[in-house]
Amino acid sequence: MKLLSFEADGAPGYGALKDGAVVDLSRRLGKEFPTLRDLLASGNLKRAEEIVSSADPDYGLNDIQFHLPIPSPEKIICVGVNYPERNAEYKDNSNLQERPSLFLRVTRSFVPHRAHLIRPPESLQLDYEGELAVVIGKPGRRIAAEKTMQHVAGFTILNEGTIRDWIRHAKFNNTQGKNWENSGSIGPWIATPDEFPNLDEVQISTRVNGQLRQHDKLGNMLFPIPYLIQYISTFTKLAPGDLIATGTPTGAGARMNPPSYLVPGGTVEVEVSGLGTLSNMVADEH
Amino acid sequence: MKLLSFEADGAPGYGALKDGAVVDLSRRLGKEFPTLRDLLASGNLKRAEEIVSSADPDYGLNDIQFHLPIPSPEKIICVGVNYPERNAEYKDNSNLQERPSLFLRVTRSFVPHRAHLIRPPESLQLDYEGELAVVIGKPGRRIAAEKTMQHVAGFTILNEGTIRDWIRHAKFNNTQGKNWENSGSIGPWIATPDEFPNLDEVQISTRVNGQLRQHDKLGNMLFPIPYLIQYISTFTKLAPGDLIATGTPTGAGARMNPPSYLVPGGTVEVEVSGLGTLSNMVADEH
Repeated sequence: MKLLSFEADGAPGYGALKDGAVVDLSRRLGKEFPTLRDLLASGNLKRAEEIVSSADPDYGLNDIQFHLPIPSPEKIICVGVNYPERNAEYKDNSNLQERPSLFLRVTRSFVPHRAHLIRPPESLQLDYEGELAVVIGKPGRRIAAEKTMQHVAGFTILNEGTIRDWIRHAKFNNTQGKNWENSGSIGPWIATPDEFPNLDEVQISTRVNGQLRQHDKLGNMLFPIPYLIQYISTFTKLAPGDLIATGTPTGAGARMNPPSYLVPGGTVEVEVSGLGTLSNMVADEH
Repeated sequence: MKLLSFEADGAPGYGALKDGAVVDLSRRLGKEFPTLRDLLASGNLKRAEEIVSSADPDYGLNDIQFHLPIPSPEKIICVGVNYPERNAEYKDNSNLQERPSLFLRVTRSFVPHRAHLIRPPESLQLDYEGELAVVIGKPGRRIAAEKTMQHVAGFTILNEGTIRDWIRHAKFNNTQGKNWENSGSIGPWIATPDEFPNLDEVQISTRVNGQLRQHDKLGNMLFPIPYLIQYISTFTKLAPGDLIATGTPTGAGARMNPPSYLVPGGTVEVEVSGLGTLSNMVADEH
């Protein structure tokens, strides 16, 4: 099942994809579960599936405005360097890391599918990072590695957009460069785990103006998804709707020679096989 | 005015201090403003003041359970090194920083006034960091330095509790060590700016088991509050109820020789002159 949040006829809602269109689940389940996050928290996806199987779609994909799949997650945790070649990109002669580098992003640093990524007047270095994001369903703390997948509601696509020259604006931490308003994107929907018979072989590709810039498969992660969930849940309780952005393959614009940043009018597409394509145009702030 | 969130008679609410007791504002304003964050967002503190001036207190301070002053802030932004001696503590021969180091914390890493700070079984290095936190009222982006104080709803106290050995668990960023469940605290209340005729002279003191460990005045900040608001609002919109933790004076347990971490049964008190004292005991997780 593919689940999404959207606005239609001026009202927010959530639903599921069917035959390339949208079945409005909030109309049928909204009293009980006001948001998609509430539905995920209930663990009641079976009921959603039954509704979808017997319902006709309510909206075409062009009749809705996409929202972030989880419009108000409690937290968004990002993994810093999680594909082997990326570690080499840092060229600092250090060995592979023992544990994942993590940082947090505020929700307002992301826009939904089809919305504009915003290049601010303060920088010419808006960059892309295509990633798979895990969406938590069942909450948990200190989740054992072999039980982690029970806590996954699904997967979505995340462009971990970055203002590069603000990454090292201060001596410690990358917060500024990773939290620019509307610099990244999430969407278009959440696909449940049953849609991925072999997660390791799932391909992730980022295209800028149609040109392939990043391409790798999930099986190449330095820290695989079960490890990430186990490790992160050691120090913080994972809550329904939380997102874990699992890191980006090599090939961000900053690493090209010369660097190639996003410019207004350009498009960024992040495709995950079996999931779909997150697509955004770039615009200057005005 | 001093504003707080609490639970009384089994229900959540918010109110204001009067004569050392609590006037329940949520009972009078809750329909219009369900939470203290909503009241701050409305900018309607004058009405709250009028109610408080004519009402008798509803609860003694021992009849309530304190909540975080803002139970669900959109974001909590922390400043890493903001008092001169602390920069020297890092002893890395680098010059003073040009811009503030920032990081985010999740709300669930904090407990309210009087609740236990939790030392997890994974570490013996639970440490304290007493800080003043700014609470945003009026939202804003790219706020000019001379207008920043119009966006401040008030100030509260924050113990930016840290699991030291998890600060450098990975090569980049301090996320893990700064986001342990229930490792820090915020409270007891928010004092509005009019309670501080001279902010620069406000004293901040941290005591562990009654022993003074940190002491400084706000005027010694490397990056003063107006600069922090201006700088942070460059990249992210500040929203009502957002917290900016302004950094801690020298004297955290990790910097003592030998280091002295918090142990179960101990108490941490962070006092800010004109505001009050945030007090917590330490307990082992069980």
